[in-house]
Amino acid sequence: MEQFLQASDYVGVSFWLVSISMVAATVFFLYEGIQVKSSWRTSLLVVGLVTLIAGVHYHYMREFWISTGESPIVYRYIDWLLTVPLQMIEFYLILVAAGLAISTYVFWRLFIGTLVMLVGGYAGEIGWVSPALGFVIGMGGWTYIIFEIFKGESSVAATKKESIKKAFGALRLIVLVGWSIYPIGYIFGLLTPMIGFETININVLNITYNLADFINKIFFGLIIWNVAVKDKS
Amino acid sequence: MEQFLQASDYVGVSFWLVSISMVAATVFFLYEGIQVKSSWRTSLLVVGLVTLIAGVHYHYMREFWISTGESPIVYRYIDWLLTVPLQMIEFYLILVAAGLAISTYVFWRLFIGTLVMLVGGYAGEIGWVSPALGFVIGMGGWTYIIFEIFKGESSVAATKKESIKKAFGALRLIVLVGWSIYPIGYIFGLLTPMIGFETININVLNITYNLADFINKIFFGLIIWNVAVKDKS
Amino acid sequence: MEQFLQASDYVGVSFWLVSISMVAATVFFLYEGIQVKSSWRTSLLVVGLVTLIAGVHYHYMREFWISTGESPIVYRYIDWLLTVPLQMIEFYLILVAAGLAISTYVFWRLFIGTLVMLVGGYAGEIGWVSPALGFVIGMGGWTYIIFEIFKGESSVAATKKESIKKAFGALRLIVLVGWSIYPIGYIFGLLTPMIGFETININVLNITYNLADFINKIFFGLIIWNVAVKDKS
Amino acid sequence: MEQFLQASDYVGVSFWLVSISMVAATVFFLYEGIQVKSSWRTSLLVVGLVTLIAGVHYHYMREFWISTGESPIVYRYIDWLLTVPLQMIEFYLILVAAGLAISTYVFWRLFIGTLVMLVGGYAGEIGWVSPALGFVIGMGGWTYIIFEIFKGESSVAATKKESIKKAFGALRLIVLVGWSIYPIGYIFGLLTPMIGFETININVLNITYNLADFINKIFFGLIIWNVAVKDKS
Amino acid sequence: MEQFLQASDYVGVSFWLVSISMVAATVFFLYEGIQVKSSWRTSLLVVGLVTLIAGVHYHYMREFWISTGESPIVYRYIDWLLTVPLQMIEFYLILVAAGLAISTYVFWRLFIGTLVMLVGGYAGEIGWVSPALGFVIGMGGWTYIIFEIFKGESSVAATKKESIKKAFGALRLIVLVGWSIYPIGYIFGLLTPMIGFETININVLNITYNLADFINKIFFGLIIWNVAVKDKS
Repeated sequence: MEQFLQASDYVGVSFWLVSISMVAATVFFLYEGIQVKSSWRTSLLVVGLVTLIAGVHYHYMREFWISTGESPIVYRYIDWLLTVPLQMIEFYLILVAAGLAISTYVFWRLFIGTLVMLVGGYAGEIGWVSPALGFVIGMGGWTYIIFEIFKGESSVAATKKESIKKAFGALRLIVLVGWSIYPIGYIFGLLTPMIGFETININVLNITYNLADFINKIFFGLIIWNVAVKDKS
Repeated sequence: MEQFLQASDYVGVSFWLVSISMVAATVFFLYEGIQVKSSWRTSLLVVGLVTLIAGVHYHYMREFWISTGESPIVYRYIDWLLTVPLQMIEFYLILVAAGLAISTYVFWRLFIGTLVMLVGGYAGEIGWVSPALGFVIGMGGWTYIIFEIFKGESSVAATKKESIKKAFGALRLIVLVGWSIYPIGYIFGLLTPMIGFETININVLNITYNLADFINKIFFGLIIWNVAVKDKS
Repeated sequence: MEQFLQASDYVGVSFWLVSISMVAATVFFLYEGIQVKSSWRTSLLVVGLVTLIAGVHYHYMREFWISTGESPIVYRYIDWLLTVPLQMIEFYLILVAAGLAISTYVFWRLFIGTLVMLVGGYAGEIGWVSPALGFVIGMGGWTYIIFEIFKGESSVAATKKESIKKAFGALRLIVLVGWSIYPIGYIFGLLTPMIGFETININVLNITYNLADFINKIFFGLIIWNVAVKDKS
Repeated sequence: MEQFLQASDYVGVSFWLVSISMVAATVFFLYEGIQVKSSWRTSLLVVGLVTLIAGVHYHYMREFWISTGESPIVYRYIDWLLTVPLQMIEFYLILVAAGLAISTYVFWRLFIGTLVMLVGGYAGEIGWVSPALGFVIGMGGWTYIIFEIFKGESSVAATKKESIKKAFGALRLIVLVGWSIYPIGYIFGLLTPMIGFETININVLNITYNLADFINKIFFGLIIWNVAVKDKS
Repeated sequence: MEQFLQASDYVGVSFWLVSISMVAATVFFLYEGIQVKSSWRTSLLVVGLVTLIAGVHYHYMREFWISTGESPIVYRYIDWLLTVPLQMIEFYLILVAAGLAISTYVFWRLFIGTLVMLVGGYAGEIGWVSPALGFVIGMGGWTYIIFEIFKGESSVAATKKESIKKAFGALRLIVLVGWSIYPIGYIFGLLTPMIGFETININVLNITYNLADFINKIFFGLIIWNVAVKDKS
C-alpha cells in the first residue's frame, strides 16, 4: 500500500499540490482545446501534453519523496528532457497559429538550442563531462534560445500582431526568469560543493523546483490558452 | 490490498458517499459542458475540475480514514488550497459567460481575498503564526470576499440579468453559510483547546466536513449547470 | 494481489457478470448520449452515472465477496443511496426531454419520497430505529413514489405522448416489481429472525440482489435509451 | 507485484497478444464509431463493447494463467455469457443500420437461441445437467441460430442490399466455422474423458481458444467496420 | 510497491523516456485525428494504436528492467508482432487517404511480407527453426516489403501526388534504415555466439532498441500527421 502523506511534511505537500494541479491542468487544456479556434488547437494540445507528462512524473516524485525523503532528481531530469523541448516548440506553434509568416528555421533553432541546454546540464550532472563544462554548454544553449525569442526572427514576427505580442512577451519572460531556477539549482547542487560553500537545503531546493514547475508549466499554458480564447479573427 | 469498509463505520460511509459522488459529478459536469452554450463551457469545466480534484482527495481521505481512523486534515487542506480559489473564480466566470460587463479587477479581488483566507488559516494550522492570528487573517480574507459578492462590483453586475441574479444569490449564500463550516471547524480544532473547552468529536467533525464539501462543491456546481442549461439567448 | 474467482463460486460469478455489465453499460449510455436528440442527452447521462456508480460498487462488492465470502451489505446501501435517487429523477427528466409540461413539484415529490424510502430502510438496518419501524417508514416512501408515478401528475403527463407512454409504463413497472426485491430482502434479513423463521440463504439473497440490480439499472436504462433513439420529432 | 511473463511460456504469449489486441480493437471501434454514418454508430459501439469486455477478461485470464498455469475456464464462460449475445444482436443491428425492413422477432430469435446455446453449455459444464444433455441443448441453440442466419428472415433480408450481403455472409461463416471451436473444446474437455479417450492438451486448448476469440471478436468487428465505412448512401 | 528508478541506471532512464513518450504520442495522435480531414482520420488512429500498444509494452519492459536488470525480449517480440503489421498497413492507408488509386493487393502484399518477416525472426528466436534459417526467412519478408515500397505498385502510386511523395519517401526510409536495427540486434543476439564473437553488451542493445522504437514509431507517426494536417484539398 502507498504510504500516506504526513501533515508535517511541507515539501511533500508541495509535491502533492503540484501533482494534482498538473492533472487538473491537463484536463483543462485538452478540454478547452476542443472549442478554441482550430488553428490554436495543436498549441493547447501541446501544453496539455506538457502538464500530462509532468503529472505522471510528479506522481512518481511525490511517492519517491514520501517513501525515501530524498530528492527525486532522476525523475526531474526525465521530465525536463521531455517537457522543455515541447515548450520551446510552443513559441513556434503560437506564431503559426496566429497566422504570422515564420520560417521553419525558427522551429529548428529553438529545438536545437533546447537540446544543447538539456544535454549539457545532464552530461554535467551524471559526470560525462565536468560539472563546470556541462554548465557552460547548458548556459550556451539557454542563451541561444533567449537570443532567438528576444532578438531573433520569432521575436520580430511576434510584434506584428497585437494579441500575440503581449503573450509572447510574457512567455519569454518565463523562459528568462522562471527557467533561471534550473541553472541556479544546478549551481547549488553541483558547483557550490566544488568551491567550498555549503550545499543548499534539500527542502528549499525541492519546494523551489516545485513552485517553478507550477509557474513554468501551468502558468505558461494559461497564457497561451488566454490568447487562444480571445482570438476570434 | 486495500482494506474494506466496515458496516459500522458511519464516518467511513460518509467519506465513501462523497468520494463516489465527486467522481459522478465530474463526469456529469464535463459531459454536460460539451453541450451547453459555448460561453458557459469553461464555467462547467471549472466546476468539473473542482469535483475532480475533490474526488482524488476524497479517495485518499477515505483510505486514510479506513486505515488509521484519524482525521485526514492534511488532505483536506491540500484540497481546499486548490478547489476554493477555483470556485471563487467561478463568480467571475459566470458573469463573463452571461455576457455582463465586468472588470478583471473582480477576478483579482476574489482571487487575492481567497488566498488571504486560505493562507491565514493554513499558517495558523501549521504554526507559522499563532492560531488566533491565523484565524483573524483568514476571517479577513473571507469577509473581503463576502463583501465583494454581496456589495461589490460583481454583485451589482449580477443584478443586470434576471437568470444570473438568482443563481448568483444562491452561490453567494453557499459562500456565506456553507463555507462557515470551515472557520467553525478551525475554532473547534485549534482555538477551543486554548480556551479550555473540550475538543469536538472527531466523527462529528468529519461527517460535517464531508456534508459541507458535498453541498459546497456539488450543489454549487449544479446551480451553475442549471443556469448554463437554461441560457438560450 | 487480487484473489482469483473460483469456478465453483456461482455467487462470485454473478457478482462478476454484473460488475462487467455495469462497466459496458456505462460506456454504452455515455457513448449513445452524444448522438441522441439533445433534449435526451441528460437522461442518458444520468442512467450512465447510475451504472457507473453501480460499476464501482460492484467492483468492491465482488472483491469483498471473493475475499470474505460474506454479504457486502454496506456497499449495497451506499450504492442504493446514490443510484436510487438518480433513477427517480429520471422519471422527471424523461418527461421534460419529451417536451411535456410538468411542474418541478414532480421532481421534488419523487426525490423526497425516495429519500424517505432509503433513510427509513437504512435507519432500520443500522439500528437507529427498530427494524419494524424502519420498514414502515421505508414502505411509506416507496408507496408514495408508486402513487406519484401510477396516479400522480407525472403519470397523467406521460399519457400525453404516445412514445413516452409505453416507456413510462415499463419504467414504473420496474419500480413496482423490480424494486420489491429490496423490501423482501429486508424482511428476510432483518424481520424474519425477529418472528422466528430461518434466515434466508446468503447465496440466494446475493444472486437475487445481483439479478435485480441488473434489471433495475441496466434494463431500466435501455428502456430510456430506446425512447431516446426513436424520438426524431 | 504482478508476475512477469516468461519467454518460454508460449501460451502466456498468446494470452498477452489477445489481451492487448482487444484493448487496441476497443479504441479502434469506439473511435471509428464517431465518424461513420450515424445509423452504423450503434453497431460499432456494440463490437467495441464486445472487445472491451473481452479485454477485461483476457487481462484476468492472462494473470490467472501466468500465476497458476491452469485453464481460466470460469473467466472464459463469463466472457462468453456477455459477448456472444452482443454479437448475435449485431446481426439484427447491421440489418437495421443498412435500412432493411426487418421484424423485431429476428432480434428475439437470435437472442433466445444464443441464451439456449450458452445456458446449455454452462449447465453441462458445472454439472446442473449431464455433460451430454448440456451438449445437446447447447447444440440445439446453435443450430437454431445457424438456421436463422442462413435460411431465416434475416438471411433473406440481407440479400436485399449488395453491400450487406457479402458482410452478412462473412459474419455467418464466423458463427458457423469460428464458433465451432467452442463445442469442439467442450467435447474434448467434458465428453472425451467419459468415452475413454485422453483429454486434450491444456496448452493446445488455450492457444486454440485464444486464436478463435481473436478471429471471432476482432475480425468479426472489422467486417462490420468495413461495411460501415463504405456505406455512404 | 513498484521499485524506483535508480539515477545511475541509464538504460532504465531510456526505457522510462520512451514509455512516457509513447503515452504522450498516443494522446497526440488520437486528439489530432479528430480534427484532420476525415479521410486521414483512420491513418492517425492507427499510428495512435501503434504508440498505445508500444506504451503498454514499454511500461512492462521498464518494470521488468528495473526489477530484474535483464532484457525484456519477450515483451519486445509481442510488441513488434502487433505494431509492425499496423505500421505496414499505414503505407496502404495513407495512399487511400490521399485519394490515390491503389489495389487492395498492396495491402495484402505488405501484410503478408510483414508476417513472414516477423514469424521468421520469432521462429529463429525461440528455436522452432535454426537461428540462421529464421534469419533468412525474416530477411526475405523484409526484402519483399522494401521492394514493394521502393519499386512496387505503392511506390508508383505515391509519386502521383506531391504532398504524399515526400512523406512516403521518409516513411520508407524508416523501414529501410530504422528497421535495420532489428535484424542487427538479431545477429548480435543469436548469430554472433554461433560464430564465436562475444555477445553484444546488454545495455547498448537495449538503449539502441529503445531509440529505434522512438524513431520508428513516434517519428514515423509524426510524418503521417504532418501530411494529414497539410492536406486541405
